[in-house]
Amino acid sequence: MSTQAVASLQAAVNRLKHELATMQVSDQIPGAGDSLSIADYLLERLVQLNVSTMFGLPGDFNLGFLDYVEDHPKIEWAGNCNELNASYAADGYARVKEGSIGVLLTTFGVGELSATNGVAGAFSEHVPVLHLVGVPSTTQQKTKPMLHHTLGDGRFDAYHVAAQQFAISHGSLQDKATAPAEIDRILTDCVVLGRPAYLMLPTDLVHEQVPRKRLLTPLNVEPPQNDPEIEAYVLDEISKLVEEANHDAVIILDACTIRHGVRKEAKDFIERSKLPVYAAPMGKSAISETYERYGGIYVGTISRPEVREKVENAKLIISIGGVRSDFNTGNFTYQIPINRTIELHSDHTKVQYATYQGIGMKHLLPKLTDRLSAFEATASQLSVPKFITPIPQEDDEVISQNWLWPRVGQFFQKGDVVVAETGTSSFGTIDIPLPEDAVFVSQILWGSIGWTVGATLGAAVAARDIGKPRTILFVGDGSLQLTVQELSVMQRLGVTPIIFVLNNSGYTIERYLHGEKRKYNDITNWNWTSLLSTFGGVEGKTCQSYTAKTKTELNNLLDDPEFAKASKIQLVELIMPRHDAPRALKVQAELSGKTNKYVAIGVEASA
Amino acid sequence: MSTQAVASLQAAVNRLKHELATMQVSDQIPGAGDSLSIADYLLERLVQLNVSTMFGLPGDFNLGFLDYVEDHPKIEWAGNCNELNASYAADGYARVKEGSIGVLLTTFGVGELSATNGVAGAFSEHVPVLHLVGVPSTTQQKTKPMLHHTLGDGRFDAYHVAAQQFAISHGSLQDKATAPAEIDRILTDCVVLGRPAYLMLPTDLVHEQVPRKRLLTPLNVEPPQNDPEIEAYVLDEISKLVEEANHDAVIILDACTIRHGVRKEAKDFIERSKLPVYAAPMGKSAISETYERYGGIYVGTISRPEVREKVENAKLIISIGGVRSDFNTGNFTYQIPINRTIELHSDHTKVQYATYQGIGMKHLLPKLTDRLSAFEATASQLSVPKFITPIPQEDDEVISQNWLWPRVGQFFQKGDVVVAETGTSSFGTIDIPLPEDAVFVSQILWGSIGWTVGATLGAAVAARDIGKPRTILFVGDGSLQLTVQELSVMQRLGVTPIIFVLNNSGYTIERYLHGEKRKYNDITNWNWTSLLSTFGGVEGKTCQSYTAKTKTELNNLLDDPEFAKASKIQLVELIMPRHDAPRALKVQAELSGKTNKYVAIGVEASA
Repeated sequence: MSTQAVASLQAAVNRLKHELATMQVSDQIPGAGDSLSIADYLLERLVQLNVSTMFGLPGDFNLGFLDYVEDHPKIEWAGNCNELNASYAADGYARVKEGSIGVLLTTFGVGELSATNGVAGAFSEHVPVLHLVGVPSTTQQKTKPMLHHTLGDGRFDAYHVAAQQFAISHGSLQDKATAPAEIDRILTDCVVLGRPAYLMLPTDLVHEQVPRKRLLTPLNVEPPQNDPEIEAYVLDEISKLVEEANHDAVIILDACTIRHGVRKEAKDFIERSKLPVYAAPMGKSAISETYERYGGIYVGTISRPEVREKVENAKLIISIGGVRSDFNTGNFTYQIPINRTIELHSDHTKVQYATYQGIGMKHLLPKLTDRLSAFEATASQLSVPKFITPIPQEDDEVISQNWLWPRVGQFFQKGDVVVAETGTSSFGTIDIPLPEDAVFVSQILWGSIGWTVGATLGAAVAARDIGKPRTILFVGDGSLQLTVQELSVMQRLGVTPIIFVLNNSGYTIERYLHGEKRKYNDITNWNWTSLLSTFGGVEGKTCQSYTAKTKTELNNLLDDPEFAKASKIQLVELIMPRHDAPRALKVQAELSGKTNKYVAIGVEASA
Repeated sequence: MSTQAVASLQAAVNRLKHELATMQVSDQIPGAGDSLSIADYLLERLVQLNVSTMFGLPGDFNLGFLDYVEDHPKIEWAGNCNELNASYAADGYARVKEGSIGVLLTTFGVGELSATNGVAGAFSEHVPVLHLVGVPSTTQQKTKPMLHHTLGDGRFDAYHVAAQQFAISHGSLQDKATAPAEIDRILTDCVVLGRPAYLMLPTDLVHEQVPRKRLLTPLNVEPPQNDPEIEAYVLDEISKLVEEANHDAVIILDACTIRHGVRKEAKDFIERSKLPVYAAPMGKSAISETYERYGGIYVGTISRPEVREKVENAKLIISIGGVRSDFNTGNFTYQIPINRTIELHSDHTKVQYATYQGIGMKHLLPKLTDRLSAFEATASQLSVPKFITPIPQEDDEVISQNWLWPRVGQFFQKGDVVVAETGTSSFGTIDIPLPEDAVFVSQILWGSIGWTVGATLGAAVAARDIGKPRTILFVGDGSLQLTVQELSVMQRLGVTPIIFVLNNSGYTIERYLHGEKRKYNDITNWNWTSLLSTFGGVEGKTCQSYTAKTKTELNNLLDDPEFAKASKIQLVELIMPRHDAPRALKVQAELSGKTNKYVAIGVEASA
């Protein structure tokens, strides 16, 4: 049986299992009788949201809750190496397991604060991560003794105050009467608003019994309906503009298409309207990159010239789920006037200069599809450039950035999860078309280096759940150093990503931005191929490491079917030149105005 | 020449260098003329505070500032593997280099937030850490473009709001006119108040020129004078109480003796008053543990019986720099009524039930010494138990917790810096007397596992600066996993700690608190002895790793003079039983009331 067949069977099994779990929810809740503990109530809600794995670390304020997690038949405890990595894993999990959420469990103060960056990143990039924190008992929160993990000054709310900055919804369980509703509120916000939520679990309350009955009503995680009158008006406005443009419109898909769960609605809209479609870097893989009317990535002046020409000359641009950040727009170089732009967002719509608050795309898109599919005939005449990146002919054996990305592009298979670290990897992969059903995972707005290592752990666990057989990571040597220990957890959980480590002696993206030859952009060279065995693997048996110094070596490896099968965790060290970078990163660096007096990338770059 | 002689020569050289640097400050400031950049102004202030090393990571909002750091002749850039580890290193540095501060440099959002836990820990434990953050330019902070590393919603102040929770002083440079005063304010607060301060450096401002002249006036980092009238009254009150107690008083030294720079004043007080002296765990090594009238550690009911009897039966207890946290007081089991207690703190004094705000110990102690030394004759009659921990006779070869700590106690030398991780290591070491001039480093209030690995890096750098030849770390396998990559930076910076890894298969302290046989307290077993070579070392040449499975093996190693010299970085894996713990941890765990229904340690433990 082929890998794909196994994977799709596995996916079918997982779907059925999930359906079964949802149907039988009342029978399967642990504990007898009409009540269950608050801990189990929360866990059952997570199972209803299709959560299979919880990330995090034990700490003495969450050990009581962890007993319930460990005893739960459907939730696996990941047991990460540190909280930052765990938060990254929860983020990666949520991105790949669309419609579900990532769950992170930490302990009061020392644990939760280590995860701050990871949770803030999920906030920035619209990823639903639930951050559960084991905190002192409700009594201790009132009497405020000088417990370990406190600031020593009685401020038991300081961590909560900090966490609020990075949570769309937050709270602490107060008593058993209100706990179930509070849990439901926080979970619903996390899913519907698509951003992190923060929930404190006092040690005493997790054991309290609450009625089981409430679980029979599933959470309502549908976005609110649009006001019909305003929605109708907006639909008229958009149709009118498309007509006035003689149907010469293009669609740009962006991050929130994926994050706010409108991938299906968008696909329908695209296929039935027949309009040309492009993606922003953060929207890469929102639609299959093999779709015939898909033209590749639009990223302002960094775009390939043929894409730029098509997009910027269109009479109308319909942006779906747009996030206009610097690295997602070629340093704010969209050459598209507002009066040619329609923007669909999760909770509002913009038509030229007008904003329609509360008109969300989830419900608007199907109606827009019905309207615009009328123009299908004209729209299908609009030409779309082919998105292909041939492997360049180079005379030497150096693994150059120019050569690497198209080459690995040919290695990709249907359904691959491709994770690209901020830096050369993310800039390199955006130019490479991915196969059908592939998922692209990158952190282009938040851009925290090292994020992909934790995220790959979560992504690989999620990919296994939904029957995607391969997760492939591209990470630089500098970035890997931040979060490397999570290679240990990957091995314990038995996921088998392929990890390409770009060994180019330091922080290459930073060299391109500033300080090309500065020592602060150097790193210590590690013995990369001994990482997997140091972190618990048995080389050649449970794990396999390789070094590729030449094109031939890498070609041979990529062509090896054993390697491509990804049946065990594999790490490939790629020896690459220190001062090389992908095309897109070079252009970005030029845009940011390289002067001795460094000015951070942004609107001032041209100053 | 002996190791000690070399060390003390090195210390003398360092002291002279520092004096020279302070004297010649005006000649040595980089750049010609009457002005210098704000970046250099800040660096010169750090040099005046005796800072030799800056910890942190590059990120594009701090690269401009980093140019100045790299070019500065007196500040070394550590270049850590991640920001949490860097913050731990800055903390460890500040603890060992008393009177100086630890400095941490991160970048906007992604960098600074990763350090939150480390900075909060420094806040909790009164450690002066300056957190510098490279942030977008002053213009960008006004126009708020959607830059990478932002939350995507225009809230450029969110990280600052979060940081305020964990900083005693904070701010952002606004313009060149006010920048020098702002820098001085933040630095002064950091030193005087002995807690973290947070300072944002906009990319554009670091280059601006400011007058050099201001640097000629050193920062005033003396604590404020006490009100003479109140101070005199307090001195009378204390003297009266000591007389009424027939001079039957004992002194307990605690954390803030060290952190608020009164080690010398306290020593003088102790030696001239001749009163018996004990230390809380967080005050360990505040006075030499070889001092003849020192009786060991007082930690409530966890104390050795002879210490407990002496302290709790004294008619008066004079507490210096006390921090009454759970783990520092044997779970709040001080059996000392308030009417027998005098507490000296950095900014207030308590005499029985009365609090005298603003009467700080730095200036009070010398006057108290003059008063109480009059009672010397009677005080010196009070007996003090001997603080010794003999090595127990055990018939087997198992490296037990009971045996290990006294055995390594014999390995310690004058001036050693001993770093003990929260858990078995910190509970194990408190029972062991340290030699003269030894420094004990542990994080008993904050208790963030993994902290010691970063802290050891900083401690070892500081120890090298002040001529202390050996830094010795005790860390559990579970804790090491959180922060392990910093072994790489230790090797790059050429410090040579001895690292004992207690391989006992998981989070032992947590097993004792709850979940003894739970899987969530297990960890993956790593190949510990290949860590140093994986992270850049050459085994046998630049680094050396050992495994000790038996008492004999460990004895042989500890008796090997080559090993004891610590001339290269060394890691010793100690194979120890999974369910063993030091005496003090066992008692602590009993105190916390082991029930199936877990209640976090604290005031509720007896409930």
